[in-house]
Amino acid sequence: MRMYDIIEKKRDGRELTDEEISFFVSGLVAGEIPDYQATALLMAIYLRGMSDRETTTLTLAMERSGDVVDLSAIPGIKVDKHSTGGVGDKTSLAVIPIVASLGVPVAKMSGRGLGHTGGTLDKLESIPGLTTALDRERFVRTVLEHGCAIVGQTGNLVPADKIIYALRDVTATVSSVPLIASSIMSKKLAAGSDKILLDVKVGSGAFMQDLDSAIELAQTMVAIGEGAGRTTVALVTNMDRPLGHAIGNSLEVIEVANTLCGNGPEDLEHECVALAAEMLVLAGRATTREEGATLAAGAIADGSAFAKLCEMIEAQGGDVSCLRDTSRFRRASVEHAVLADRSGYVTRLDTTAIGIASVELGAGRERLEDEIDPSAGITLLKNRGDAVEEGEVVALLHTSDESRLADALATFTSAVHIAAEPPAPEPIVLARVDAAGVCRFE
Amino acid sequence: MRMYDIIEKKRDGRELTDEEISFFVSGLVAGEIPDYQATALLMAIYLRGMSDRETTTLTLAMERSGDVVDLSAIPGIKVDKHSTGGVGDKTSLAVIPIVASLGVPVAKMSGRGLGHTGGTLDKLESIPGLTTALDRERFVRTVLEHGCAIVGQTGNLVPADKIIYALRDVTATVSSVPLIASSIMSKKLAAGSDKILLDVKVGSGAFMQDLDSAIELAQTMVAIGEGAGRTTVALVTNMDRPLGHAIGNSLEVIEVANTLCGNGPEDLEHECVALAAEMLVLAGRATTREEGATLAAGAIADGSAFAKLCEMIEAQGGDVSCLRDTSRFRRASVEHAVLADRSGYVTRLDTTAIGIASVELGAGRERLEDEIDPSAGITLLKNRGDAVEEGEVVALLHTSDESRLADALATFTSAVHIAAEPPAPEPIVLARVDAAGVCRFE
Repeated sequence: MRMYDIIEKKRDGRELTDEEISFFVSGLVAGEIPDYQATALLMAIYLRGMSDRETTTLTLAMERSGDVVDLSAIPGIKVDKHSTGGVGDKTSLAVIPIVASLGVPVAKMSGRGLGHTGGTLDKLESIPGLTTALDRERFVRTVLEHGCAIVGQTGNLVPADKIIYALRDVTATVSSVPLIASSIMSKKLAAGSDKILLDVKVGSGAFMQDLDSAIELAQTMVAIGEGAGRTTVALVTNMDRPLGHAIGNSLEVIEVANTLCGNGPEDLEHECVALAAEMLVLAGRATTREEGATLAAGAIADGSAFAKLCEMIEAQGGDVSCLRDTSRFRRASVEHAVLADRSGYVTRLDTTAIGIASVELGAGRERLEDEIDPSAGITLLKNRGDAVEEGEVVALLHTSDESRLADALATFTSAVHIAAEPPAPEPIVLARVDAAGVCRFE
Repeated sequence: MRMYDIIEKKRDGRELTDEEISFFVSGLVAGEIPDYQATALLMAIYLRGMSDRETTTLTLAMERSGDVVDLSAIPGIKVDKHSTGGVGDKTSLAVIPIVASLGVPVAKMSGRGLGHTGGTLDKLESIPGLTTALDRERFVRTVLEHGCAIVGQTGNLVPADKIIYALRDVTATVSSVPLIASSIMSKKLAAGSDKILLDVKVGSGAFMQDLDSAIELAQTMVAIGEGAGRTTVALVTNMDRPLGHAIGNSLEVIEVANTLCGNGPEDLEHECVALAAEMLVLAGRATTREEGATLAAGAIADGSAFAKLCEMIEAQGGDVSCLRDTSRFRRASVEHAVLADRSGYVTRLDTTAIGIASVELGAGRERLEDEIDPSAGITLLKNRGDAVEEGEVVALLHTSDESRLADALATFTSAVHIAAEPPAPEPIVLARVDAAGVCRFE
C-alpha cells in the first residue's frame, strides 16, 4: 500500500477502504508518512469529504493510535459530555455535579481554552488549591468515591489527533466536518465512557456558524459513536449569545456555584437542565427527558448538586470556602463599566469578538503557552434580546492589567449592537440529534 | 502576508493575487515555506484550479526564481520546441536539424526520460562520443557556428519548479493543468528563446488522455506564452499509437537518420514536417504553414536536414559515422520476435504499456538514478490500423539482458489488440492552438 495512491483516490473523490485509512493513521503515528503527504491528503479530505463509514473508520483508527482509558472499575453506565466550545460555556462544571448527585458516575477529561473559547480545566484551576493533574489511578478512585472528577488528559491518548490537528492548524484544513468529528470522537472513545452526550454550539461564537452545518456535524458524530457501539446523543445549542452572564475563569465558577444554588441566569440553568436530562436518560437513571429534567431541577432545588460540586472540588484539592462564599475569590484590580450609547434592545452580539475581548483582558490564550489571569473576564449584564436604556451598564470588563483595557473595550464595543426593535427570540436548544434522526426546535 | 491565508483562499476557490503567488514561490525557494503547507496549497490548486491570470503569474514567478538564459548573442528569431512526452517521440531530433538547415537557429535544452516516455538527451547520448553537457558559452557558440545544439539544463534554471515538481510527484498533484502548464512554460521562458512551439500529446500513451483536456492544456500554455510576450503555438498530436516504428534510444536515432534521408515512417515524417512548418512560420522564414511544409519537405529531399543533423552531432563530439552507416550502432544481444496470434487489424494500442515494456527491456528509467541500455527497445512493425496475418511479426523486442524479456513480453502482448474490423482512422495532428483560438482537425 502506498500513501500516494491513497491521496490520489481521495483527490478523485473516491471512498477509501478501512485498510487505507488505517495505513494512513498508523503510518503517521509511526513517523513513516511525511507531513507533506499528510497535508495533501487532509486538503483532499477537506474538499472531497468523507462518507460516514470512512469517518467512523478514521475515528476508530485514531482512537486506537495510543492508550485508551479503562473505566471498568467504576460500576454503572458512565456517560461522557463534550461541548464543541463556546463563549461563557461553563455547562460541564454544572451538569456533571447535577448528574453525579443523582447517582450517575462521570469520569471526565477536559481541555484548556484556546482562542476565543474557554476551557473547563482553566476554569476549575481558578479555585485555589485545585488540581486537574490526577493520575489514572487517582482519577478512577475519585470517581468511585465521589461520583465524579474532571481532569486533564493523562497518558498517550490519541497521538494521531495531536499530529493531525497540528497539521490542520497550519494548512487551513480545520473546518472540515469529517476531520472535526473524528478529532472529537476519537478522544471521546479513548476516554472510555459507555455513552456520550455532545453539545454542538452554533452561531456567531461557535465554530459552526449556521444550523445546517451544526446539525451535519452532530449527525456525523452521532453516526461515529453509534458505529463504535457507544450510544451518542447531540444537542445543538445557541451560541449567537454568550451563555449566562459570566465570561472568564473564576467569574464562570462563581456563576456555576450560583446556578447550582438556584440563583443562576435563566439561559444557563435551562441549558444545564436540558443537558443533564439527556445524560440521566442515557445512564438509565430516568426513563424520559421530562423525568430527567425534573430530577435535575430537583437536584438544584434541594442543594444536592451544589453539595456534589463542593465534594468534587474538595476531592481534587480545591478550597471549597471560595464556593460557599464567592467573595473570597480574588477580584481583578480593574473593573470597567461599558455603558449603552443609546436606548433600545440588544439585537445582535458578535459572540466570537466578545470571546476575543475576554482573551484581550487576560482570561484566555492566543497560544497554548500563554499564561492566563483567572480573575479577568467580562460580566455581561445585557444579553441578546434585553432592553437597555442609554447610559445603563451593558457589561463590566475585569482585568488585572490596565494596559489591556483599551483593545478589549474596542473589541467588545464593536461586538454589541443595539437597535430600536427587539430581535426575534431564539431557543437555547435548537435541535436534537440521535440515532433515530434529527429534531429541530422552533 | 501568511501562507495560511493563501491556502485558505485557494481552498475556498478564490483567485490569488499576484503578490500572494509571488510570496508562495519566493518563500518556497528561500526555504521559508514548509513542505506541508506547500502540498496543501498544491492540492487546493489541483482541486480548485487557477485562472489564466493566476497561472501566468505563477509561471513568471517560477521563471524568475533562478537564472534565465540569454540568447541575445545569437542573431535572428530563436524558436524553441517542447513536447509533453510520448512513446517513440523523436521529433525534436529530426525537426531541429530541418529548421536549422533552413537558417532558423535553435538553442534547445532537453530532458531525460522518466517512466514510460523517453528523453531527447538519452537518445542523443546513444551516439558514441556525443555530449549534451555543454556549458552556456559553448552552447551559444555551437548554435552560432552550426545553427543548432541540444543540451542538458545548465545553471540554476527555475529552482522553484524542481521543488514544486518533487512535491507534486509524491502527493498526486502532477496531473493539474495549471501546474503542468506553469512547470513547462516556466522552463521554456527561462530557456530564453523568442517564440515557442508546443507539441501536446494526447491518447493512451500521453499524460492527457482525451482531446478536450489536451486542448485545455494547450490553450493554457499558449495564454501563458502570449502573456509573457512570447508568441506561442501548440499542435495537439496523436499518442494513441507510438510515433514511428522505433522505441528506444539508438533505435530512435537510427529512425531519425532514416527519416531525414527520406526513408522514415510516414506518420513520423508527416508530424516532423508539420512541426517544422510551424517553427519556420514562427521564425519568419516562411509566410504560411503550407510554404513552411514545402521548405521542410525540401530540406529532407535535398539532404540538407540530414547534413545539419550530422553537423550538430559532430559539433557535440558524436561519432557521425554511426549515422552515415547505422549498422555501426551496437545491437542488443537479444532480439525477440512477437508474432500475431490471430489475423485481423491492430485496432488498439495501450501506448503507455508499450512505453513501460521498453523500460522493462532496459531502454528507460523508473527512477532518475537508473542506468539505461542505449540499444534496448522495441521495433514496432505493425502500428494502429495495420492489417496483420496470424504468425506475422508484430514487433521485435531488443534487450541486452535476457532476464528482462519475460516481463516486457507480457506487458507488450497485453497492450496490442487485434480484431477483425479495422479501426476508424485518426489524424496525426488533431488540433492547433494559437492566440487566435483552437482549430480541430477531423
